[in-house]
Amino acid sequence: MSVLIHFSIFPTDKGTSVSPYVAKSIRIIQESGLPYKLGPMSTAIEGSAWAEVMGVVEKCFQELKGDSERIYMTLQMDYRAGAKNRLEGKIRSVEEKL
Amino acid sequence: MSVLIHFSIFPTDKGTSVSPYVAKSIRIIQESGLPYKLGPMSTAIEGSAWAEVMGVVEKCFQELKGDSERIYMTLQMDYRAGAKNRLEGKIRSVEEKL
Amino acid sequence: MSVLIHFSIFPTDKGTSVSPYVAKSIRIIQESGLPYKLGPMSTAIEGSAWAEVMGVVEKCFQELKGDSERIYMTLQMDYRAGAKNRLEGKIRSVEEKL
Amino acid sequence: MSVLIHFSIFPTDKGTSVSPYVAKSIRIIQESGLPYKLGPMSTAIEGSAWAEVMGVVEKCFQELKGDSERIYMTLQMDYRAGAKNRLEGKIRSVEEKL
Repeated sequence: MSVLIHFSIFPTDKGTSVSPYVAKSIRIIQESGLPYKLGPMSTAIEGSAWAEVMGVVEKCFQELKGDSERIYMTLQMDYRAGAKNRLEGKIRSVEEKL
Repeated sequence: MSVLIHFSIFPTDKGTSVSPYVAKSIRIIQESGLPYKLGPMSTAIEGSAWAEVMGVVEKCFQELKGDSERIYMTLQMDYRAGAKNRLEGKIRSVEEKL
Repeated sequence: MSVLIHFSIFPTDKGTSVSPYVAKSIRIIQESGLPYKLGPMSTAIEGSAWAEVMGVVEKCFQELKGDSERIYMTLQMDYRAGAKNRLEGKIRSVEEKL
Repeated sequence: MSVLIHFSIFPTDKGTSVSPYVAKSIRIIQESGLPYKLGPMSTAIEGSAWAEVMGVVEKCFQELKGDSERIYMTLQMDYRAGAKNRLEGKIRSVEEKL
Protein backbone atom coordinates (compact mmCIF):
# COMPACT_ATOMS: atom_id res chain seq x y z
CA MET A 1 0.00 0.00 0.00
CA SER A 2 1.06 3.57 -0.62
CA VAL A 3 0.32 6.59 1.55
CA LEU A 4 1.31 9.56 -0.58
CA ILE A 5 0.98 13.05 0.85
CA HIS A 6 2.09 16.52 0.03
CA PHE A 7 2.03 19.25 2.61
CA SER A 8 3.15 22.72 3.49
CA ILE A 9 3.63 23.93 7.07
CA PHE A 10 4.77 27.41 8.02
CA PRO A 11 4.57 29.95 10.87
CA THR A 12 2.27 32.92 10.25
CA ASP A 13 3.81 35.11 12.95
CA LYS A 14 7.23 35.55 11.31
CA GLY A 15 6.53 37.85 8.37
CA THR A 16 7.01 36.93 4.73
CA SER A 17 10.37 35.12 4.72
CA VAL A 18 9.64 31.64 5.95
CA SER A 19 12.24 29.67 4.00
CA PRO A 20 14.44 29.08 7.12
CA TYR A 21 11.43 27.36 8.72
CA VAL A 22 10.69 25.39 5.58
CA ALA A 23 14.34 24.26 5.55
CA LYS A 24 13.93 22.91 9.11
CA SER A 25 11.04 20.74 7.94
CA ILE A 26 13.00 19.47 4.93
CA ARG A 27 15.85 18.44 7.20
CA ILE A 28 13.43 16.43 9.35
CA ILE A 29 12.02 14.79 6.22
CA GLN A 30 15.53 13.93 5.01
CA GLU A 31 16.39 12.34 8.37
CA SER A 32 13.26 10.17 8.15
CA GLY A 33 14.73 8.30 5.20
CA LEU A 34 11.39 8.36 3.38
CA PRO A 35 11.44 9.27 -0.31
CA TYR A 36 10.37 12.87 -0.83
CA LYS A 37 10.07 15.46 -3.57
CA LEU A 38 10.43 19.19 -3.01
CA GLY A 39 7.96 21.38 -4.91
CA PRO A 40 7.59 25.16 -5.10
CA MET A 41 4.62 25.18 -2.70
CA SER A 42 4.76 21.86 -0.86
CA THR A 43 6.78 18.75 -0.23
CA ALA A 44 5.58 15.28 -1.19
CA ILE A 45 6.44 12.19 0.90
CA GLU A 46 5.54 8.56 0.36
CA GLY A 47 5.42 5.70 2.84
CA SER A 48 3.74 2.36 3.31
CA ALA A 49 1.66 3.27 6.36
CA TRP A 50 -0.24 6.23 7.80
CA ALA A 51 1.87 6.36 10.99
CA GLU A 52 5.16 6.31 9.07
CA VAL A 53 4.22 9.31 6.95
CA MET A 54 2.18 11.29 9.45
CA GLY A 55 4.85 10.73 12.12
CA VAL A 56 7.23 12.80 9.98
CA VAL A 57 4.62 15.54 9.58
CA GLU A 58 4.14 15.62 13.35
CA LYS A 59 7.91 16.02 13.89
CA CYS A 60 7.86 19.05 11.56
CA PHE A 61 4.98 20.52 13.56
CA GLN A 62 6.67 19.93 16.93
CA GLU A 63 9.88 21.56 15.67
CA LEU A 64 8.04 24.69 14.47
CA LYS A 65 6.01 24.83 17.67
CA GLY A 66 9.24 25.57 19.55
CA ASP A 67 9.66 28.78 17.54
CA SER A 68 6.16 29.97 16.72
CA GLU A 69 2.94 31.17 18.26
CA ARG A 70 0.94 30.37 15.18
CA ILE A 71 1.39 27.71 12.50
CA TYR A 72 -0.64 26.94 9.39
CA MET A 73 -0.56 23.66 7.51
CA THR A 74 -2.24 22.36 4.42
CA LEU A 75 -1.98 18.69 3.52
CA GLN A 76 -3.40 16.36 0.91
CA MET A 77 -3.23 12.57 1.02
CA ASP A 78 -3.80 10.02 -1.70
CA TYR A 79 -3.90 6.42 -0.42
CA ARG A 80 -3.88 3.48 -2.77
CA ALA A 81 -3.97 -0.16 -1.73
CA GLY A 82 -1.48 -2.45 -3.43
CA ALA A 83 0.59 0.37 -4.94
CA LYS A 84 4.11 1.65 -4.41
CA ASN A 85 6.70 4.04 -5.88
CA ARG A 86 4.05 6.57 -6.76
CA LEU A 87 6.24 9.55 -5.97
CA GLU A 88 7.89 9.08 -9.36
CA GLY A 89 5.35 6.71 -10.88
CA LYS A 90 2.42 9.12 -10.96
CA ILE A 91 4.40 11.80 -12.82
CA ARG A 92 5.66 9.14 -15.30
CA SER A 93 2.14 7.81 -15.81
CA VAL A 94 0.89 11.27 -16.78
CA GLU A 95 3.93 12.08 -18.95
CA GLU A 96 3.41 8.86 -20.95
CA LYS A 97 -0.07 10.09 -21.86
CA LEU A 98 1.10 13.49 -23.09
CA MET B 1 -2.94 25.83 22.98
CA SER B 2 -5.42 25.11 20.23
CA VAL B 3 -4.98 22.71 17.34
CA LEU B 4 -7.83 23.50 14.98
CA ILE B 5 -8.23 21.48 11.80
CA HIS B 6 -10.79 20.95 9.15
CA PHE B 7 -10.62 18.00 6.83
CA SER B 8 -12.44 15.95 4.27
CA ILE B 9 -11.71 12.28 3.63
CA PHE B 10 -13.51 10.14 1.06
CA PRO B 11 -13.05 7.06 -1.12
CA THR B 12 -12.54 7.73 -4.84
CA ASP B 13 -13.42 4.20 -5.96
CA LYS B 14 -17.11 4.30 -4.93
CA GLY B 15 -18.69 6.63 -7.50
CA THR B 16 -20.34 9.91 -6.68
CA SER B 17 -22.42 9.14 -3.58
CA VAL B 18 -19.99 9.15 -0.71
CA SER B 19 -22.24 10.40 2.11
CA PRO B 20 -22.43 6.93 3.79
CA TYR B 21 -18.62 7.05 4.09
CA VAL B 22 -18.67 10.61 5.34
CA ALA B 23 -21.25 9.56 7.96
CA LYS B 24 -18.84 6.86 9.21
CA SER B 25 -16.19 9.51 9.81
CA ILE B 26 -18.63 11.79 11.62
CA ARG B 27 -19.58 8.93 13.94
CA ILE B 28 -15.90 8.41 14.80
CA ILE B 29 -15.53 12.14 15.45
CA GLN B 30 -18.60 12.13 17.70
CA GLU B 31 -17.22 9.19 19.70
CA SER B 32 -13.96 11.09 20.25
CA GLY B 33 -15.77 13.64 22.39
CA LEU B 34 -13.88 16.51 20.75
CA PRO B 35 -15.88 19.57 19.74
CA TYR B 36 -16.58 19.55 16.01
CA LYS B 37 -18.51 21.47 13.40
CA LEU B 38 -19.94 19.93 10.25
CA GLY B 39 -19.60 22.01 7.09
CA PRO B 40 -20.77 21.39 3.53
CA MET B 41 -17.30 20.35 2.34
CA SER B 42 -15.36 19.47 5.48
CA THR B 43 -15.58 18.91 9.20
CA ALA B 44 -13.71 21.06 11.72
CA ILE B 45 -12.35 19.63 14.99
CA GLU B 46 -10.50 21.33 17.81
CA GLY B 47 -8.25 19.86 20.47
CA SER B 48 -5.43 20.87 22.75
CA ALA B 49 -2.72 18.69 21.20
CA TRP B 50 -1.63 17.38 17.81
CA ALA B 51 -2.00 13.71 18.81
CA GLU B 52 -5.50 14.22 20.18
CA VAL B 53 -6.79 15.74 16.96
CA MET B 54 -4.76 13.77 14.45
CA GLY B 55 -5.56 10.54 16.27
CA VAL B 56 -9.21 11.05 15.35
CA VAL B 57 -8.30 11.71 11.72
CA GLU B 58 -6.25 8.49 11.67
CA LYS B 59 -9.24 6.52 12.99
CA CYS B 60 -11.37 7.87 10.13
CA PHE B 61 -8.68 6.79 7.67
CA GLN B 62 -8.35 3.29 9.14
CA GLU B 63 -12.13 2.83 9.01
CA LEU B 64 -12.32 3.83 5.34
CA LYS B 65 -9.31 1.67 4.49
CA GLY B 66 -11.40 -1.37 5.39
CA ASP B 67 -13.82 -0.51 2.58
CA SER B 68 -11.78 1.24 -0.09
CA GLU B 69 -8.90 0.74 -2.49
CA ARG B 70 -8.33 4.43 -2.84
CA ILE B 71 -8.89 7.33 -0.43
CA TYR B 72 -8.32 11.05 -0.82
CA MET B 73 -7.98 13.49 2.03
CA THR B 74 -7.48 17.22 2.27
CA LEU B 75 -6.74 18.82 5.62
CA GLN B 76 -5.87 22.26 6.90
CA MET B 77 -4.54 23.02 10.38
CA ASP B 78 -4.33 26.30 12.26
CA TYR B 79 -2.33 26.07 15.50
CA ARG B 80 -2.30 28.89 18.01
CA ALA B 81 -0.41 28.87 21.29
CA GLY B 82 -2.34 30.03 24.33
CA ALA B 83 -5.75 29.92 22.65
CA LYS B 84 -8.87 27.83 23.08
CA ASN B 85 -12.52 27.58 21.99
CA ARG B 86 -11.68 28.76 18.50
CA LEU B 87 -14.25 26.49 16.83
CA GLU B 88 -16.92 29.03 17.78
CA GLY B 89 -14.64 31.92 18.67
CA LYS B 90 -13.16 32.49 15.23
CA ILE B 91 -16.59 32.77 13.59
CA ARG B 92 -17.74 35.15 16.36
CA SER B 93 -14.59 37.27 15.99
CA VAL B 94 -15.29 37.74 12.27
CA GLU B 95 -19.03 38.36 12.76
CA GLU B 96 -18.28 41.13 15.28
CA LYS B 97 -16.31 42.96 12.58
CA LEU B 98 -19.07 42.77 9.96
CA MET C 1 -25.27 22.29 -11.91
CA SER C 2 -23.66 23.19 -8.63
CA VAL C 3 -20.20 24.67 -8.12
CA LEU C 4 -19.57 24.39 -4.40
CA ILE C 5 -16.33 25.74 -2.97
CA HIS C 6 -14.88 26.53 0.36
CA PHE C 7 -11.84 28.73 0.71
CA SER C 8 -9.69 30.69 3.06
CA ILE C 9 -7.63 33.71 2.00
CA PHE C 10 -5.44 35.75 4.31
CA PRO C 11 -2.36 38.00 4.31
CA THR C 12 0.80 36.46 5.77
CA ASP C 13 2.58 39.77 6.33
CA LYS C 14 0.22 41.12 9.04
CA GLY C 15 1.02 38.97 12.07
CA THR C 16 -1.42 36.63 13.76
CA SER C 17 -4.63 38.66 13.93
CA VAL C 18 -6.14 38.43 10.49
CA SER C 19 -9.84 38.60 11.36
CA PRO C 20 -10.23 42.19 10.02
CA TYR C 21 -9.03 40.91 6.64
CA VAL C 22 -11.31 37.89 6.82
CA ALA C 23 -14.22 40.24 7.58
CA LYS C 24 -13.44 42.18 4.38
CA SER C 25 -13.79 38.99 2.36
CA ILE C 26 -17.06 38.07 4.07
CA ARG C 27 -18.49 41.48 3.21
CA ILE C 28 -17.60 40.93 -0.46
CA ILE C 29 -19.25 37.50 -0.33
CA GLN C 30 -22.37 38.98 1.24
CA GLU C 31 -22.58 41.63 -1.48
CA SER C 32 -22.40 38.92 -4.15
CA GLY C 33 -25.78 37.61 -3.08
CA LEU C 34 -24.58 34.00 -3.37
CA PRO C 35 -25.51 31.64 -0.53
CA TYR C 36 -22.58 31.14 1.81
CA LYS C 37 -21.73 29.46 5.09
CA LEU C 38 -19.09 30.72 7.49
CA GLY C 39 -16.91 28.04 9.10
CA PRO C 40 -14.13 28.29 11.68
CA MET C 41 -11.39 27.86 9.04
CA SER C 42 -13.04 28.66 5.72
CA THR C 43 -16.13 30.01 4.03
CA ALA C 44 -18.27 27.91 1.69
CA ILE C 45 -20.07 29.45 -1.31
CA GLU C 46 -22.32 27.85 -3.89
CA GLY C 47 -23.24 28.99 -7.38
CA SER C 48 -24.40 27.59 -10.66
CA ALA C 49 -21.30 28.40 -12.71
CA TRP C 50 -17.52 28.56 -12.32
CA ALA C 51 -17.32 32.26 -13.22
CA GLU C 52 -20.05 33.23 -10.75
CA VAL C 53 -18.29 31.62 -7.80
CA MET C 54 -14.67 32.25 -8.76
CA GLY C 55 -15.49 35.86 -9.61
CA VAL C 56 -16.31 36.39 -5.93
CA VAL C 57 -13.05 34.75 -4.89
CA GLU C 58 -11.14 37.04 -7.26
CA LYS C 59 -12.81 40.10 -5.72
CA CYS C 60 -11.62 38.98 -2.27
CA PHE C 61 -8.09 38.58 -3.64
CA GLN C 62 -8.08 42.01 -5.34
CA GLU C 63 -9.31 43.65 -2.13
CA LEU C 64 -6.56 42.05 -0.02
CA LYS C 65 -3.93 42.87 -2.66
CA GLY C 66 -4.51 46.55 -1.90
CA ASP C 67 -3.34 45.98 1.68
CA SER C 68 -0.82 43.16 1.54
CA GLU C 69 2.52 42.19 0.11
CA ARG C 70 1.83 38.50 0.55
CA ILE C 71 -1.41 36.52 0.47
CA TYR C 72 -2.08 32.82 0.93
CA MET C 73 -5.19 31.02 -0.21
CA THR C 74 -6.42 27.49 0.02
CA LEU C 75 -9.54 26.45 -1.89
CA GLN C 76 -11.44 23.25 -2.54
CA MET C 77 -14.16 22.82 -5.15
CA ASP C 78 -16.77 20.10 -5.57
CA TYR C 79 -18.69 20.33 -8.85
CA ARG C 80 -21.76 18.22 -9.48
CA ALA C 81 -23.83 18.27 -12.67
CA GLY C 82 -27.59 18.46 -12.19
CA ALA C 83 -27.43 19.34 -8.50
CA LYS C 84 -28.34 22.38 -6.44
CA ASN C 85 -28.78 23.59 -2.86
CA ARG C 86 -25.83 21.53 -1.69
CA LEU C 87 -24.66 24.13 0.83
CA GLU C 88 -27.36 22.86 3.20
CA GLY C 89 -28.18 19.62 1.40
CA LYS C 90 -24.83 17.91 1.88
CA ILE C 91 -24.89 18.45 5.65
CA ARG C 92 -28.48 17.19 5.82
CA SER C 93 -27.63 14.13 3.73
CA VAL C 94 -24.87 13.16 6.18
CA GLU C 95 -26.96 13.93 9.27
CA GLU C 96 -29.75 11.64 8.01
CA LYS C 97 -27.29 8.76 7.96
CA LEU C 98 -26.04 9.31 11.52
CA MET D 1 4.13 40.41 -8.83
CA SER D 2 3.91 36.66 -8.73
CA VAL D 3 0.76 34.56 -8.49
CA LEU D 4 1.99 31.07 -7.73
CA ILE D 5 -0.51 28.25 -7.42
CA HIS D 6 -0.52 24.53 -7.29
CA PHE D 7 -3.66 22.55 -7.90
CA SER D 8 -5.11 19.17 -8.57
CA ILE D 9 -8.39 18.61 -10.43
CA PHE D 10 -9.91 15.23 -11.14
CA PRO D 11 -13.28 13.53 -11.79
CA THR D 12 -14.62 11.42 -8.92
CA ASP D 13 -17.06 9.43 -11.09
CA LYS D 14 -14.44 7.57 -13.14
CA GLY D 15 -12.96 5.09 -10.69
CA THR D 16 -9.34 5.04 -9.57
CA SER D 17 -7.41 5.59 -12.81
CA VAL D 18 -7.61 9.30 -13.47
CA SER D 19 -4.28 9.85 -15.21
CA PRO D 20 -5.88 10.31 -18.67
CA TYR D 21 -7.87 13.21 -17.18
CA VAL D 22 -4.80 14.63 -15.48
CA ALA D 23 -2.99 14.46 -18.82
CA LYS D 24 -5.74 16.56 -20.43
CA SER D 25 -5.15 19.28 -17.84
CA ILE D 26 -1.40 19.20 -18.36
CA ARG D 27 -1.88 19.65 -22.10
CA ILE D 28 -4.01 22.75 -21.42
CA ILE D 29 -1.34 24.08 -19.08
CA GLN D 30 1.36 23.49 -21.70
CA GLU D 31 -0.66 25.34 -24.33
CA SER D 32 -0.99 28.32 -21.98
CA GLY D 33 2.73 28.97 -22.24
CA LEU D 34 2.97 29.65 -18.49
CA PRO D 35 5.86 28.05 -16.62
CA TYR D 36 4.70 24.96 -14.73
CA LYS D 37 6.06 22.13 -12.65
CA LEU D 38 4.49 18.69 -12.46
CA GLY D 39 4.44 17.11 -9.00
CA PRO D 40 3.19 13.71 -7.83
CA MET D 41 -0.05 15.15 -6.41
CA SER D 42 -0.46 18.54 -8.06
CA THR D 43 0.83 20.87 -10.73
CA ALA D 44 2.32 24.27 -9.94
CA ILE D 45 1.89 27.25 -12.30
CA GLU D 46 3.19 30.78 -12.02
CA GLY D 47 1.96 33.95 -13.66
CA SER D 48 2.00 37.69 -13.14
CA ALA D 49 -1.75 38.15 -12.60
CA TRP D 50 -4.71 36.36 -11.06
CA ALA D 51 -6.66 36.18 -14.34
CA GLU D 52 -3.71 34.76 -16.26
CA VAL D 53 -3.24 31.87 -13.84
CA MET D 54 -6.85 31.22 -12.88
CA GLY D 55 -7.91 31.39 -16.52
CA VAL D 56 -5.80 28.28 -17.15
CA VAL D 57 -7.40 26.53 -14.17
CA GLU D 58 -10.85 27.37 -15.52
CA LYS D 59 -9.95 25.87 -18.91
CA CYS D 60 -8.98 22.62 -17.16
CA PHE D 61 -12.32 22.62 -15.33
CA GLN D 62 -14.34 23.30 -18.50
CA GLU D 63 -12.53 20.48 -20.32
CA LEU D 64 -13.26 17.96 -17.54
CA LYS D 65 -16.86 19.14 -17.29
CA GLY D 66 -17.43 17.79 -20.78
CA ASP D 67 -16.60 14.27 -19.55
CA SER D 68 -17.66 14.16 -15.91
CA GLU D 69 -20.67 14.43 -13.64
CA ARG D 70 -18.55 15.20 -10.63
CA ILE D 71 -15.19 16.97 -10.28
CA TYR D 72 -13.07 17.72 -7.26
CA MET D 73 -10.35 20.33 -7.08
CA THR D 74 -7.93 21.47 -4.44
CA LEU D 75 -5.83 24.58 -5.01
CA GLN D 76 -3.39 26.65 -3.02
CA MET D 77 -2.15 30.11 -3.99
CA ASP D 78 0.80 32.12 -2.74
CA TYR D 79 0.84 35.71 -3.98
CA ARG D 80 3.84 37.94 -3.49
CA ALA D 81 4.11 41.54 -4.65
CA GLY D 82 7.31 42.47 -6.48
CA ALA D 83 8.49 38.89 -6.96
CA LYS D 84 9.01 36.64 -9.96
CA ASN D 85 10.50 33.30 -11.00
CA ARG D 86 9.37 31.67 -7.78
CA LEU D 87 8.57 28.34 -9.43
CA GLU D 88 12.28 27.53 -9.34
CA GLY D 89 13.35 30.24 -6.91
CA LYS D 90 11.48 28.98 -3.87
CA ILE D 91 12.98 25.49 -4.14
CA ARG D 92 16.46 26.99 -4.61
CA SER D 93 15.97 29.29 -1.62
CA VAL D 94 15.17 26.32 0.62
CA GLU D 95 17.96 24.13 -0.79
CA GLU D 96 20.52 26.85 -0.06
CA LYS D 97 19.55 26.70 3.60
CA LEU D 98 19.93 22.92 3.87
